[in-house]
Amino acid sequence: MTSVRAPLTVYGMSVSGNCHKVRMLLEHLGSRYEWVEVDSANGQTHTPGFLALNPNAKVPLVQRDDGRVLPESNAILFWLAEGTPYLSTDGWERAQTLRWMFFEQYSHEPCVAVARFIRGWTAIDSPRRAELPQLQARAAQALAVMERHLAQADWFSGRHYGIADIALFAYTDVAADGGVTLAPYPAVLAWLRRVRAQPGFVPMPPVSPQVQALLVQPA
Amino acid sequence: MTSVRAPLTVYGMSVSGNCHKVRMLLEHLGSRYEWVEVDSANGQTHTPGFLALNPNAKVPLVQRDDGRVLPESNAILFWLAEGTPYLSTDGWERAQTLRWMFFEQYSHEPCVAVARFIRGWTAIDSPRRAELPQLQARAAQALAVMERHLAQADWFSGRHYGIADIALFAYTDVAADGGVTLAPYPAVLAWLRRVRAQPGFVPMPPVSPQVQALLVQPA
Repeated sequence: MTSVRAPLTVYGMSVSGNCHKVRMLLEHLGSRYEWVEVDSANGQTHTPGFLALNPNAKVPLVQRDDGRVLPESNAILFWLAEGTPYLSTDGWERAQTLRWMFFEQYSHEPCVAVARFIRGWTAIDSPRRAELPQLQARAAQALAVMERHLAQADWFSGRHYGIADIALFAYTDVAADGGVTLAPYPAVLAWLRRVRAQPGFVPMPPVSPQVQALLVQPA
Repeated sequence: MTSVRAPLTVYGMSVSGNCHKVRMLLEHLGSRYEWVEVDSANGQTHTPGFLALNPNAKVPLVQRDDGRVLPESNAILFWLAEGTPYLSTDGWERAQTLRWMFFEQYSHEPCVAVARFIRGWTAIDSPRRAELPQLQARAAQALAVMERHLAQADWFSGRHYGIADIALFAYTDVAADGGVTLAPYPAVLAWLRRVRAQPGFVPMPPVSPQVQALLVQPA
């Protein structure tokens, strides 16, 4: 009997958008991988074992079969997508892809994802809930920038669906969890539908009942 | 008489670290470019003219001679560095380069750069100054991650100096402006010296006397 180890191990929290990006691409590619669930909302990225893999204490992180590791969701996407249809070979399209991936990490994730985290993963009386109105206002600005782009283009990755779309999809698709409404952004809603129609698309798994109970509270 | 237009126009604020990154690389490369000064600290990225170039209202932004534009400092670095010694051709080294550039934009710039902005570009009685202790604590965490990496490597871009080093250098070199001390990080200090010794290195220009007067106030 032979144990066949997958060539890639993904350390991630399944209901984190940053982690789901990696799963989305691996499923699009039909790649073989092992997923190791890490509950980053409850301290599991701060254990000595995990800090030895990533001193920055964040998931996702991928590990190759020779032990080498790579953190940062968008760096992982870029590395995995090289040579596949999900990353253009054209220099200018690659630059625009990176432009939207840096936009995602600087101007989108810190409001769209953090608002969701506060609503679903902090106590109902957490003082952090005072941050929500400002985070939701910043999320609206980021969505307006996306809406404007989508008025003149189908995708964020160039002429075709690709890793910038995956990066922006993950948290936009669950923006409502953070009390962020997508109704004012019809082009964003249409783009979300186009992403969901891609071959091999997998949705984010459901959150736990405890988290769901917090998310359904009035914003 | 012929007017020769530079092939690349950079819109930037010279004393912004994100903008200085672009100048650093262009000077390393000996490239010809036109620099258009944009005072983003005083609303110049929110004019209708600038918003038409970048709806996300940020500098730096580069414009090619055919009018096409690219924002996001680290996307600009990646695009400019392709095919030069400042970006490896090795896939894994490129992934690690991107990993540190995403670390810079998510875990470093939002504390190191924002602390500097608040100290130098907001009024001495601004309520935003209440954010400084938390920003300085997060900056210390980011610097500790860098220190740990530099205990086993000379650079952030792989085996050689490159764009991840440029991205991390820009605000680390002026971290003291934000009340962030580098004394506990000897490997970071040694790395800053190695960057300054690179051929074609240019330091950030001095800030205005008004900003300097704020920066010299006790933290």
